[in-house]
Amino acid sequence: MRIEASFLEIASAYRFVFLDAYGVLKNSTGMIQGAAETLLKLGEQGSDCYVITNDASRSPGQMARSYCHPRYGELVPVEHIISSGMLASDFLASKVRPGRVAYVGKPSSAYYIESAGHTPLPVAQCADDHAIDALVLLDDEGFDWFSDINRCVNLLRRQNVPVVVANTDLSYPASETDVSIAVGSLANMIEGIIQKTFIRFGKPDTQIFDFAYDLVLTRDPLTSKKQVLMVGDTLHTDILGGNKFGIDTLLVLSGNTQERDAEVRIHATGILPNFVCASIAT
Amino acid sequence: MRIEASFLEIASAYRFVFLDAYGVLKNSTGMIQGAAETLLKLGEQGSDCYVITNDASRSPGQMARSYCHPRYGELVPVEHIISSGMLASDFLASKVRPGRVAYVGKPSSAYYIESAGHTPLPVAQCADDHAIDALVLLDDEGFDWFSDINRCVNLLRRQNVPVVVANTDLSYPASETDVSIAVGSLANMIEGIIQKTFIRFGKPDTQIFDFAYDLVLTRDPLTSKKQVLMVGDTLHTDILGGNKFGIDTLLVLSGNTQERDAEVRIHATGILPNFVCASIAT
Amino acid sequence: MRIEASFLEIASAYRFVFLDAYGVLKNSTGMIQGAAETLLKLGEQGSDCYVITNDASRSPGQMARSYCHPRYGELVPVEHIISSGMLASDFLASKVRPGRVAYVGKPSSAYYIESAGHTPLPVAQCADDHAIDALVLLDDEGFDWFSDINRCVNLLRRQNVPVVVANTDLSYPASETDVSIAVGSLANMIEGIIQKTFIRFGKPDTQIFDFAYDLVLTRDPLTSKKQVLMVGDTLHTDILGGNKFGIDTLLVLSGNTQERDAEVRIHATGILPNFVCASIAT
Amino acid sequence: MRIEASFLEIASAYRFVFLDAYGVLKNSTGMIQGAAETLLKLGEQGSDCYVITNDASRSPGQMARSYCHPRYGELVPVEHIISSGMLASDFLASKVRPGRVAYVGKPSSAYYIESAGHTPLPVAQCADDHAIDALVLLDDEGFDWFSDINRCVNLLRRQNVPVVVANTDLSYPASETDVSIAVGSLANMIEGIIQKTFIRFGKPDTQIFDFAYDLVLTRDPLTSKKQVLMVGDTLHTDILGGNKFGIDTLLVLSGNTQERDAEVRIHATGILPNFVCASIAT
Repeated sequence: MRIEASFLEIASAYRFVFLDAYGVLKNSTGMIQGAAETLLKLGEQGSDCYVITNDASRSPGQMARSYCHPRYGELVPVEHIISSGMLASDFLASKVRPGRVAYVGKPSSAYYIESAGHTPLPVAQCADDHAIDALVLLDDEGFDWFSDINRCVNLLRRQNVPVVVANTDLSYPASETDVSIAVGSLANMIEGIIQKTFIRFGKPDTQIFDFAYDLVLTRDPLTSKKQVLMVGDTLHTDILGGNKFGIDTLLVLSGNTQERDAEVRIHATGILPNFVCASIAT
Repeated sequence: MRIEASFLEIASAYRFVFLDAYGVLKNSTGMIQGAAETLLKLGEQGSDCYVITNDASRSPGQMARSYCHPRYGELVPVEHIISSGMLASDFLASKVRPGRVAYVGKPSSAYYIESAGHTPLPVAQCADDHAIDALVLLDDEGFDWFSDINRCVNLLRRQNVPVVVANTDLSYPASETDVSIAVGSLANMIEGIIQKTFIRFGKPDTQIFDFAYDLVLTRDPLTSKKQVLMVGDTLHTDILGGNKFGIDTLLVLSGNTQERDAEVRIHATGILPNFVCASIAT
Repeated sequence: MRIEASFLEIASAYRFVFLDAYGVLKNSTGMIQGAAETLLKLGEQGSDCYVITNDASRSPGQMARSYCHPRYGELVPVEHIISSGMLASDFLASKVRPGRVAYVGKPSSAYYIESAGHTPLPVAQCADDHAIDALVLLDDEGFDWFSDINRCVNLLRRQNVPVVVANTDLSYPASETDVSIAVGSLANMIEGIIQKTFIRFGKPDTQIFDFAYDLVLTRDPLTSKKQVLMVGDTLHTDILGGNKFGIDTLLVLSGNTQERDAEVRIHATGILPNFVCASIAT
Repeated sequence: MRIEASFLEIASAYRFVFLDAYGVLKNSTGMIQGAAETLLKLGEQGSDCYVITNDASRSPGQMARSYCHPRYGELVPVEHIISSGMLASDFLASKVRPGRVAYVGKPSSAYYIESAGHTPLPVAQCADDHAIDALVLLDDEGFDWFSDINRCVNLLRRQNVPVVVANTDLSYPASETDVSIAVGSLANMIEGIIQKTFIRFGKPDTQIFDFAYDLVLTRDPLTSKKQVLMVGDTLHTDILGGNKFGIDTLLVLSGNTQERDAEVRIHATGILPNFVCASIAT
């Protein structure tokens, strides 16, 4: 495994750069040092950056505001942010008849239900006889785990409705030292009890890459996949998904995969990035 | 699938009858009607009854008291109750050096740590720098799910200690209509995030049957497995485990497996009981 | 579950109809009776038909010839056939440097390696010290299972190369009464031993639907997903994938899902088609 | 992780020593150098040795003969050999009515069916309408993989009979550099297609330890588990199983777990042996 000296040199050879959020652009304390400067330089050199994130805890607009630099202003326009929540929202809009959609997650995550034209209902407010049209697992916060996860199980035993998982991650970094359990783990647990098949959105599934690539094509219909680079910190989501979608991939060592583990993990999993860099700030 | 008319007739042909607790002897509202009478009659006819239960929420003594009939008194002596918690306790006693053992569960479940000679510590009281000697998942109640399940994950990322799961069930009946998530499901979720191998105790693993059979042998060293019948309401635990242990098995339709599903499930799983009865009260 | 009387009436309301091959258009004895007539009528009524199949055993051209009716001639043009092998081929072309690609499958399946510009090498001809650039699992026939599946395992222990699975199905119908193990099951077994992450192509993954939809858009760039219907006989591939992709889905009962099981399976899995028909010949 | 200098010193403190076969006593080229001497010395010092092996390819008698040293004669008496095949045989004897039992494996593996009083029938000789009483997966050799594994799948779709897996290993060493796929992997593949629940025998399940411990108790009824040591080369079978059974465990680095990986794997899995030695010849 060779660690490339300069991320900027590699990335600027691509017309479009897809970036994961956590572990690439930011960590638990805010934006990764030097990331803002890299985004600016990539823009100056003619590479368009898009954020591709397994996150349905808040709207793309709220996400965009978190990349607003005090000096340089908005670093990623809202139209360049693609979240797994947007795919879940598309699914609701196209496949679930307008009506009540129960959800677990923070109130801000209900954006993805409202934007699909449905009425969001926190699962805590679902009485046993409430007919719902779907259940969406959006985020790991904003509800009481004991009562509301149990309530999900019993709702799904009574009503045969689609269950949407808007973030497939198992955990995410909560601080320098700790992780938090993500809603993808809760979904796996509920599915294991209920034995129904949930519908999941997010990397490594290629659907989110297709969604982003379609945006790219509306901007420049002649773009080929060879002009796109996926940058991520996680082999099983960012790199596996990017590889499967057919674009080049670059692993950064500033998040889930640390320098001391990278070579062992690449070998153990067989998930092979095209490039490895310490971080995007190089 | 033939449903036998009389449980009593079949069971009384066995010298020893092993019975699951939930769905066989009791349900969410208390003892199943007629179960007490059946226990008494089996005893009169010379069959000894043992309770074999995936339950580590309280001590065998507390369990025995729940089978105390207002008129007939104690129905199952405490020495005839074998819980998965007792196997977990044995493991702690034989394999973990005396010290602090973190746990999730109600205070009453800590019995299984204390009886092994260890000091139980609710996981909520484990500071990050607390060295522990093991973590035991005992019960789904008695702690705050959000903070304490996340705490388990982070404890196990820092310390390489044995993790014991004292009840492998995924869910259990909480009322006529609802189930509750059991600690076995929480264990699977944490293991999926941590990727370590937990040590599980409970049916269908044959270890709990061996434990009970050893008790039987101390009573009558010449007992053969042909003289033992396992009675349960769940194919994947009671019947699969009893079959694998090499004893006859009887499925009752008073709990997890209902009459309308029994034939389909037996066919779909390939788990074949020797007998099927409506309940033990027949 | 309501079984619609006329497939033709429902399908002709869609501008584009995606059809699975096995169990929908044909079975083990050839084309399903009446299927040819339905394809012709749909064409007359202005619906374009595409075949979307988890099959990498032969080229799209060979597949198209199998839908050639003695009287009506070619029923599905080769450009309307999308196989999971084509996605695997795209992956090889875009992500694997030109060179030798080992494979398991019939010689005809090697088409998907050659069309990507690589040199196919039957795994039986891979000496231990042969450097390869990828391994592709294409088909369950055309090789010696014992020696060649074992050879795959040992090749992958020595060389860290991408492994591509060009058909994710577990089994397929081989006759009226029997099934055959598909290469997807062999892939799962090898992956379980090697513990590396393989790259899989085929339904229910939405990538194959995206591939087909892109073809549709080149024909009519204004097509919306509402104008597309997916028709399949398998809940876990055709219906789940179509639902996730956001198009309407129709289950036929002429293949994997039989009328006597359909309602139970839809309920058990929670995979909900928009429509159910006996077959496409209605 | 500390590697102990002398296996003999540690093991001779135990009254009974349980040893895995492959990777501990022998490897692909025969007995491990120095293993015979260690067995002899342990015997002289009063420790009784038992072989506990996931192997159903031949009878215990044949296994015993493979430990016959040219100079010292028989190293392990046949009564001290416990194979997973013996547990499968016990299951057949106690739970399956006398009759025809189909099997996959070498003819020598059929010993375990005959010794249970059943008539073994190679699966290749099972016509479609042959009624069988059970199917046993014994060994990965002695049959045609393509036709016979497919035949197993179709047999099990037609007849609802118990399926016994007499060796749970996924693979085993075939030479210095290569592994072979074991019957446990074939069983997992078939079970994944059929979706029935197979009955598995072998480490890490504690049943085989119980079987051996019962033998020990017949020799000396006062033996405690503290006097027993399990020695193995595989964390997930030998060490996990021994730990769960409540006996001390010792990992040797002469087989599946190599010195360069041992510390990483112990940490990654959380499976903790009491001791680690280079081999038993120390």
